[in-house]
Amino acid sequence: MEHIVNMKSLTTEEMMKIIELAREMKADGIRKLDRTYYVSNLFFEPSTRTKSSFEMAERRLGMEVIPFAPESSSTLKGESLYDTVKTFEAIGLDLVVIRHPRDKYYEQLVDHMDIPLINGGDGSGQHPTQSLLDIFTIYEHFGQFEGLNVTIAGDISHSRVAKSNAESLKRLGANVTFVCPEEWAGEFDYTTDLDAQIENCDVLMLLRVQHERHDGEGLAFSKWEYHRQFGLTLERAERLQKHAIIMHPAPVNRGVEIADELIESPQSKILTQVENGVYVRAAIIKLLLKGRNE
Amino acid sequence: MEHIVNMKSLTTEEMMKIIELAREMKADGIRKLDRTYYVSNLFFEPSTRTKSSFEMAERRLGMEVIPFAPESSSTLKGESLYDTVKTFEAIGLDLVVIRHPRDKYYEQLVDHMDIPLINGGDGSGQHPTQSLLDIFTIYEHFGQFEGLNVTIAGDISHSRVAKSNAESLKRLGANVTFVCPEEWAGEFDYTTDLDAQIENCDVLMLLRVQHERHDGEGLAFSKWEYHRQFGLTLERAERLQKHAIIMHPAPVNRGVEIADELIESPQSKILTQVENGVYVRAAIIKLLLKGRNE
Amino acid sequence: MEHIVNMKSLTTEEMMKIIELAREMKADGIRKLDRTYYVSNLFFEPSTRTKSSFEMAERRLGMEVIPFAPESSSTLKGESLYDTVKTFEAIGLDLVVIRHPRDKYYEQLVDHMDIPLINGGDGSGQHPTQSLLDIFTIYEHFGQFEGLNVTIAGDISHSRVAKSNAESLKRLGANVTFVCPEEWAGEFDYTTDLDAQIENCDVLMLLRVQHERHDGEGLAFSKWEYHRQFGLTLERAERLQKHAIIMHPAPVNRGVEIADELIESPQSKILTQVENGVYVRAAIIKLLLKGRNE
Repeated sequence: MEHIVNMKSLTTEEMMKIIELAREMKADGIRKLDRTYYVSNLFFEPSTRTKSSFEMAERRLGMEVIPFAPESSSTLKGESLYDTVKTFEAIGLDLVVIRHPRDKYYEQLVDHMDIPLINGGDGSGQHPTQSLLDIFTIYEHFGQFEGLNVTIAGDISHSRVAKSNAESLKRLGANVTFVCPEEWAGEFDYTTDLDAQIENCDVLMLLRVQHERHDGEGLAFSKWEYHRQFGLTLERAERLQKHAIIMHPAPVNRGVEIADELIESPQSKILTQVENGVYVRAAIIKLLLKGRNE
Repeated sequence: MEHIVNMKSLTTEEMMKIIELAREMKADGIRKLDRTYYVSNLFFEPSTRTKSSFEMAERRLGMEVIPFAPESSSTLKGESLYDTVKTFEAIGLDLVVIRHPRDKYYEQLVDHMDIPLINGGDGSGQHPTQSLLDIFTIYEHFGQFEGLNVTIAGDISHSRVAKSNAESLKRLGANVTFVCPEEWAGEFDYTTDLDAQIENCDVLMLLRVQHERHDGEGLAFSKWEYHRQFGLTLERAERLQKHAIIMHPAPVNRGVEIADELIESPQSKILTQVENGVYVRAAIIKLLLKGRNE
Repeated sequence: MEHIVNMKSLTTEEMMKIIELAREMKADGIRKLDRTYYVSNLFFEPSTRTKSSFEMAERRLGMEVIPFAPESSSTLKGESLYDTVKTFEAIGLDLVVIRHPRDKYYEQLVDHMDIPLINGGDGSGQHPTQSLLDIFTIYEHFGQFEGLNVTIAGDISHSRVAKSNAESLKRLGANVTFVCPEEWAGEFDYTTDLDAQIENCDVLMLLRVQHERHDGEGLAFSKWEYHRQFGLTLERAERLQKHAIIMHPAPVNRGVEIADELIESPQSKILTQVENGVYVRAAIIKLLLKGRNE
């Protein structure tokens, strides 16, 4: 592993290595690295949880984080992403995390970089650290993936998470079903019938309705209607298997993807996912820096 | 003390404990805590001095500060304050400082939080760490509070500081008088005659004229007129008792609340207040973390 | 050296002292200072590279950096720069770096400050740390300055770099020629004929075309036309002396000041300049703090 840009380029062995190290870190605590490494999180899109999660992982590893704010940066002067990244390399970073609105922005970068790149989300493409924390959370609960029924419900076509997760979970042996309105299916197989899946799934992964991406596109249904057709209502929650878990990448639209009362319910792993994100990101960073030093 | 949200919920013993620890820290320096703690300052309103003061206190204590910028956060995606705070808890913070424009925003939070919350200012409500640094600054100068005449002049109704301070200083034994134009008195007893107070007060606490909050409300007087009626002019400064002190929470509107030449005069404690803020905040943080560990 | 505000106030001995220390740091690494010092970078203009470079230098020296974002600060409430700086002093900073759009903003500050100030750029005035890193980069390559022909091409009148550099390089013994369109010459001697200089220069220093400063001023030529007349084209690069170096303060407008293919060419020092900036800034900080302690 030189970089983490998408799930496709990770072998299942690499995935499991990350998961095992994250598990170890969660059990024993995250220890500081052998020396001070320097990192910057270049987030060109708003983010609280992903950015803070990286910050926490980095600081627990004893790294120094060089701040970056796109709104006060030279990108305002029209500087290309390539030039910004080369600048940070020249300044002496050991690793860089990037979130950018352009799909596959990393393709123009990785061949020219001397330091590891972690993709913190690209356009409506991939979000591999979110996928890995989701996979870790499933593994932590079930101990394996073989034959697990994973239902992913929501805005499939715009979701970085849906695509990364589906691909990886299938490779690991799980069965994945997409549930969504027709207009959000994109190129994927899907069903519109959440009720047919609810009693059968081991993992119900709800996706965020991305209002900010749909602005002006004229959604065919109201929030309430979405909740009724594609959301986890109290009634549907009753029908879940007892061992099933509820996941959501957050931030949650309360009462849309999931009923308010269920967010912190015993079967919900939503806050556990946030917690696990720190361990998974710390594990990835450690492995990338180790790989580079070798 | 589990949280610091307003002055009302602090006993006088707790106030004095904070003040004593701040005094000790100012004398001996702020020492690093026993381990690395993680904190974030969630400031949903602009602030230089309060935020920087917390940052300095936190770093002197050896804490790691996870950055937060509301303009690039998920609150843009409509996330509730509750969900933002739970996210930061899940990420592994040990303490959180919040400033928010909504009055008593903390009421919906404190019962659900596992980590201490410090209120860095809520709407036009309270600003307890400012109150405590004001009280510390008075105590540092006079050695006690009993019978001190404190005159608070300015925009009482919109001031977080006026309300917190008045309440606490009375409890500690001081006499508090409000001086302000009628339209800024709110529910409080007041006088409009600053000259009648000037020779009598031990502490003259000037409040900031918050132009940004009065936009469009049509102030009845110009800046110059305010200065003449309610400001500390050079003439009034002459009539202050020699032992009296001048306070202002800053930022100062020069020539409005106070004449330019007086800001750094020997009787002014304005920069001392800024300096003391770091010690008071470090003391509060230390006591809250200690309380939580016990 | 109490402050670094412009090149004029530095003696050549002081310049050489900074360059020697930077060279030492580049060879041996930047070591942490004897204790933790506190610094803030008050950047009132957008900047990636200068701000990040300072941040990196400061952290390698083991300093704690108190964050500052003008868009969420009290400057929004109309606070003066003087009051902001006094506040940061009172909070306990040991050193402050300021970039501000106003020419010579520092003149109203330095006499009233108890801590060292480093000017990170003032309006279209000076940018001394950029000048020093440029000078260091030249010295690193040539080992001395006497008789070097330095050609500075571009927007002389608006360039902080051009003025600082020209002045200092002349003092160090170099010959400096300005090449620019007539309307960008300001008060300086200049030629419009880059071709006449190209075979003769040892250092070709290209300046950024500052589109954001020329908005609405109606440039007399297109980007393409600028490149043809004043840019480093592939043809011109062929005619450079083999030992000559190409410099640019970045961010580069690719295909305007310089052809794309030349940015990372063997003669280009553009990324070396970025790298050297960290060492030069670390050297300056160390010398200023040392000077203050003595």
